[in-house]
Amino acid sequence: MAAASWSERVLHLLNRMNNFYSTGSCRASCLRFEVDGAQVGWIRPHVASLLSRYPQVFTAPRGGAVSLCQSLDSYEGRSEAVHEVLLALRQEDSLTCLRGWRDERYSVMPRFSDPPVMWMERAATSLFGVKRYGVHLNAYTVSDGGEVSMWLARRSSTKQTYPGLLDNMAAGGLAAGVGIKHTLVKECQEEACVPVDTAMTARPAATVSYTYEDEEGVFPESQFVFDLEVPAGFRPRVGDGEVQDFYLLPIEKVKELLATDDFKPNSAMVVLDFLIRHSLVEPDTEPHYQEFVAGLHQTL
Amino acid sequence: MAAASWSERVLHLLNRMNNFYSTGSCRASCLRFEVDGAQVGWIRPHVASLLSRYPQVFTAPRGGAVSLCQSLDSYEGRSEAVHEVLLALRQEDSLTCLRGWRDERYSVMPRFSDPPVMWMERAATSLFGVKRYGVHLNAYTVSDGGEVSMWLARRSSTKQTYPGLLDNMAAGGLAAGVGIKHTLVKECQEEACVPVDTAMTARPAATVSYTYEDEEGVFPESQFVFDLEVPAGFRPRVGDGEVQDFYLLPIEKVKELLATDDFKPNSAMVVLDFLIRHSLVEPDTEPHYQEFVAGLHQTL
Repeated sequence: MAAASWSERVLHLLNRMNNFYSTGSCRASCLRFEVDGAQVGWIRPHVASLLSRYPQVFTAPRGGAVSLCQSLDSYEGRSEAVHEVLLALRQEDSLTCLRGWRDERYSVMPRFSDPPVMWMERAATSLFGVKRYGVHLNAYTVSDGGEVSMWLARRSSTKQTYPGLLDNMAAGGLAAGVGIKHTLVKECQEEACVPVDTAMTARPAATVSYTYEDEEGVFPESQFVFDLEVPAGFRPRVGDGEVQDFYLLPIEKVKELLATDDFKPNSAMVVLDFLIRHSLVEPDTEPHYQEFVAGLHQTL
Repeated sequence: MAAASWSERVLHLLNRMNNFYSTGSCRASCLRFEVDGAQVGWIRPHVASLLSRYPQVFTAPRGGAVSLCQSLDSYEGRSEAVHEVLLALRQEDSLTCLRGWRDERYSVMPRFSDPPVMWMERAATSLFGVKRYGVHLNAYTVSDGGEVSMWLARRSSTKQTYPGLLDNMAAGGLAAGVGIKHTLVKECQEEACVPVDTAMTARPAATVSYTYEDEEGVFPESQFVFDLEVPAGFRPRVGDGEVQDFYLLPIEKVKELLATDDFKPNSAMVVLDFLIRHSLVEPDTEPHYQEFVAGLHQTL
């Protein structure tokens, strides 16, 4: 069998990152997770069974949904009650994703523009299929001749997720109550030692959205994408140890790498979005151009 | 009641252009239109009844689908057989959309990357919910001080669709077998008298996709979006009479106008996509930023 083309491998990546939308996904068996009458996530049946042991916090499944008990009617009240349950489940060690406990609070809301209804420990969001938001950066240079190169990071081999894979130069999750650009600038400083003045010139340009599932849970995510053009003399430096090395690579090489298993999948999507916006992939020569764009922006 | 904000009006526009996805749309009652076992469109029940009078071309509805008869097994055979039916229906004058007959052949295919299975008269595509593709151009200038202005067209008052509304400087449908950039350059020449050399510098940057319905049919569309930066001295000129006038407006004014009824809705989406890609709308200050991006890329 002939090796799959770049185009086919990219399509496969996008399908994998959106496998929650495929026929045959767990979606049909999932329960909606509702707070105050509005859906904020998806719960797989085995997680719903565990939660049913806490009837003072979660209602029994009804009409395809699990809700927080009505008595939990405040942001802090809901957050603390769910947190107690999660601490107990973590103690039991029956859910492997809770081994990745982060002590990072993510906001829970029906839509990004809605007020948060509670916060939740980052490691637990996939159990509830709660949407997570983050920031990703495309840092690039343009030579006098117009040649584009991009800075990539190699993730530390001790990272909990995707150790040792290629990644955008900087990226991070959006914690409860923190600004988007502020988060981007902070991640640039911490992960790549980018001076604030330089990081502040990053420009928002897109979001990339997708939903995947694995054995443990459901991962609806949206990443706010920024572009940062840096001068030829710029060099990122390893900061907080999340990264082991940085490389400046010609964009054609980056394009090739993003369709390999050596690249963190959602970061590969962010680079693909960059290639499209910067006319480095063109519709007359890329047969799946329109499907690429669609696959970068799937939402429920 | 307070007037709706710009942000709310834009969200409303996006919802309207994606109303086929709303609960309460005709989607639930529509039949799939299939050719050779693959879906290529959506047919409303009243259209299916009309088609049932031509059993030598269309199968009776079965399993939620209407298909072309298996004996029609070639591109030309299918195209001609459907064309004959459409000419007969046009004669009867029972479908108002066929009064807008264009003599333009659109390709019909399950996905853009698939080989076309037939062609169809442009005016009939909405009856079959066949996806239409087109090109749209954002033509803009950047002053020495970095101020962006955009060229807009005012559609001729005699245009069949959206007469007298504001529009992108150039746009057009993608006819069967014609290249995307080629179509863009041709529309630039015909509609705005843009020299080929200038039009050729347009850069592909996105697609914008949506599906709306009205009484007559279903309109799934994807537009290939190009950006063209023109010098300060550039002036488009009225070409083939599709446009009555052109205006160069500060981008803030364009932003305001796109959320009004004075703007052709899909062209307003193309401008919104430009604003996002060029950081003229930012996620920290636009609460619906992520929903805007999602609304610009809805596909079935």
